[in-house]
Order: sequence, then structure tokens, then C-alpha cells
Amino acid sequence: MKEKVGSYTLQVEPFHVDFSGKLLIGVLGNHFLNCAGYHAKERGFGIAEINESNFTWVLSRLAIELNDLPNQYETFTIQTWVENVYRLFTDRNFAVYDKDNNVCGYARSVWAMINIDTRKPADLLTLHGGNIVDYIETEKSCPIEKPSRIKVGSAMPMRTIETYYSDIDINGHVNSIKYIEHILDLFSKDWYNNKRIKRFEMAYVAETYFGETLSFYRDEVEDGTFDIEVRKNVGGEVPEGELVCRSKVVFVNK
Amino acid sequence: MKEKVGSYTLQVEPFHVDFSGKLLIGVLGNHFLNCAGYHAKERGFGIAEINESNFTWVLSRLAIELNDLPNQYETFTIQTWVENVYRLFTDRNFAVYDKDNNVCGYARSVWAMINIDTRKPADLLTLHGGNIVDYIETEKSCPIEKPSRIKVGSAMPMRTIETYYSDIDINGHVNSIKYIEHILDLFSKDWYNNKRIKRFEMAYVAETYFGETLSFYRDEVEDGTFDIEVRKNVGGEVPEGELVCRSKVVFVNK
Repeated sequence: MKEKVGSYTLQVEPFHVDFSGKLLIGVLGNHFLNCAGYHAKERGFGIAEINESNFTWVLSRLAIELNDLPNQYETFTIQTWVENVYRLFTDRNFAVYDKDNNVCGYARSVWAMINIDTRKPADLLTLHGGNIVDYIETEKSCPIEKPSRIKVGSAMPMRTIETYYSDIDINGHVNSIKYIEHILDLFSKDWYNNKRIKRFEMAYVAETYFGETLSFYRDEVEDGTFDIEVRKNVGGEVPEGELVCRSKVVFVNK
Repeated sequence: MKEKVGSYTLQVEPFHVDFSGKLLIGVLGNHFLNCAGYHAKERGFGIAEINESNFTWVLSRLAIELNDLPNQYETFTIQTWVENVYRLFTDRNFAVYDKDNNVCGYARSVWAMINIDTRKPADLLTLHGGNIVDYIETEKSCPIEKPSRIKVGSAMPMRTIETYYSDIDINGHVNSIKYIEHILDLFSKDWYNNKRIKRFEMAYVAETYFGETLSFYRDEVEDGTFDIEVRKNVGGEVPEGELVCRSKVVFVNK
């Protein structure tokens, strides 16, 4: 049997850093999803096996906490493992190490498996003989808090954008990473000059399609801590639109 | 001495395909730039060596012509080589092969090397002992036309956008790939349902900074062939704004 923790060493590409030269958090999120895919595939519960039986993995929650991020051209390592498997959800964790094996940060994610046609969740404890359960890792710790409650009061969107060709993935939806980019784009250069992201959370609720509009509502709930809600097609047939996702961003001084 | 043609095998990641499951052209462009970087570095004229002496490579022109693009999860290979070196420019070509070694397409690019402080171009024939000249490949062909003349007549922008955090690279500029994404986002889903891109050209003229606006002007010069001009800060101090880049996109029926 394959080891429970998967380990993947990557390099920071030049177009994957922000103006400070650090890996973009959207790109880190993309790497997490790829590593989750590799890890699952290598252990027999990947999307290729799943798709044959008309099921797919869906990311529900993501929480990332960071001390630091690797710089342009540096190598870094992502480890990932399954912490828990419930009937309808599984918890997958990540750890990020820099080139000298120092911890950059950790992440927690929550996934469901759904039937592509009915969009109904599958029972993870029985699917594929329940072999995912054999890979639950109990010893490796992920010392960050679980995703928290996010509540936004603002009634006025801070920004409304249309969704275009580059936003859309193979399923016809805005891809999970694009929401992260659009949310981090709500902050100014002056802000990023002095602050870095300590914690970032996403809670995915509904899908968005090519041509739908996304409205971003933002509350500063504490000094440097923002709760953000994304709603689609606000002002349309349903005036208040439909909730798409929620996010929390915690900044600290650099 | 290293072989003149560099060859790099990559895999198409899930978040790097469009709704049809084909590799995004912006991502392909990103891979080209990375492969150019690897190729140059392995042969002693990469950006790391150059930066020590305060010089950097700048992409001036890019023309891509495609029969096909690889699908999600498939491997593909990019080959790159230097075709010519002039005093102020060098021509670098690319070939793209699918997993079965069929040609997907070719690309031509033109680069200058500039001094970071003065922004003045360097003499490529003398820099670093002129060793780039040793790597000119004369046998491998790149059977596509050179970048053409692009001329836009439209006086009304089709779209104007602000530039945000995710657009900006380590140099503080909108990165070369983001322009490609924004330009391809000018076309609708219906359009992409029936058409694919046969040829795509970019001519980079000036840099854009965080917070500047980009306006996109588009002419259909022939059936399915579009000339596009991007100007920044239109309607500001200089009413007609400043030219940032030009692009040509040639679509054919799928």
C-alpha cells in the first residue's frame, strides 16, 4: 500500500508570483487541488476512476494559514493527506514547506463526491469498496483552525464583474481558483505594500456560468480581517441574486 | 555544448483548460515563456546570469499558429530554439507536439534585452561574449508566417477594465500572459462553441501598472479575423490614452 501522506516538490514560476515576488495564493490553491488529484489517483480514488462511474470530487471548503510563501524560482514541497472520512464529506489537509524544509503554512479542505447527473452526494464510506478509509492519516498534525463562520452584512456590492471565457473550466463553471483571484483583487496596491495574508478561507456554495455576473460584498469585521460574500446575477430576476461563495481574509502587517 | 533545440514535456492541468477541455492559449503562452527561460538558462544566457549585470529579456512579439491543442491531463512537448540573433533583437521559435508526437502548432517570438535602469536595449552580439550566437539553429523549420501588421480603426472601446493585484508581476507590470487572457475574453461563449483559434499574435509596446485602466478596441478585418488594440488610461490626461499592445486573432470553424 502507498504511504498515506503524498509529497510533491514544485518550483515557483515567474508568472506565478505577485509584485513582491511571492507565490500567488490562487496559484498555491491550484497546486493544492492538483496535489489532491495526484494523491487520490495514486491511491485509487482519483477523478479518473470516479468519472467512469459518473462521480466527481467537489471542493466545499478551503482554509489556508501562512507564515511565509516561497519566492520566484524557488522549489517548495506540498504534502497532503486525508484526515477524516465521513459519509458525505472528507477532510483533506496540506502542509507547505520551503526549499530549506521550513514550514510555510498549512491548509484544510473539505470535499464531497457528487453524481454528475443528479448532483447528489455519494456515500464515501461505501464507494469503491470504501478504500479511501484505508488512507486516513492519524499521526500528522495540521495545527490550524477549521474553517469558520463567515457573515457579511454589507448590502452594497464593492464590485460587480462579468464572467468571461478565461474564467470557465471544463465543467462550464467559473473555476474555484478564479474566485480566489477575484476576491484578492478587491484590495489595493497600497494595502498589499504593507500587509500580507495570514489566513484565507473559501466556502463554495453554488456554481457560476459563462456570462453571469458576480457581485462582491465586503465587511471589515476586525482590524485587517474581512468577510466577503459573492452573489451572482444581483438585480436580475431574483433581486438579491444567489449566494455563490463566502470568503474570509486575515491580513497582518509585513 | 548543449544541443541547440531544447525539449520540454509537460502535462495539461485541470485548471489550465477551457470549457472544451483544450489547453488555454494564455497557459500555452506561459509555458512558452518558461521554456524560453529554461532553454536560455541551460545555455548560459538566462535571466539569472543577465540580471547580475542589470539586464533582462523583454518579449516584443509573439505569433502562434495551431492545428490543435492538447486535452486535459494529456502530456505534450514544447521544443524551442533560437533562429536568429541581431544586434537588438533575437528570434526564438517554438514547436508543440501532442502525446503521440503529432504537431499541434508552432510559434515565433521576438525578444530584446534591456538594461533595467535605463530601459535601453543591449547589443546581443557582444553581450556575454556573444555566446547566444553559438546556439543559432539553422536546420529546424518553423513553417508559419512572421508577425504581421495590425491596424485598428475603431474609435470606441469594446471594453474598459481596471488592472488589479492578480494582473501584476514581480516587475510591477501587468504580465504578458494577462493581456492574452483579457483579449480572448472579448469573445462570447457562442463564438467559442463554433470556432477555434487558428492564429494568435501579440505585439507588446508599453507596460501597464497596477490601477491603470485598459481599453480594448476590436475590428473584424476579415470574416473571423480580428485586429485588436489595447490602450491605457483613455480619457485621462492624454484623451486618446497610450498604446500598450496590439493583437490579431484568426478563428476558423471547428
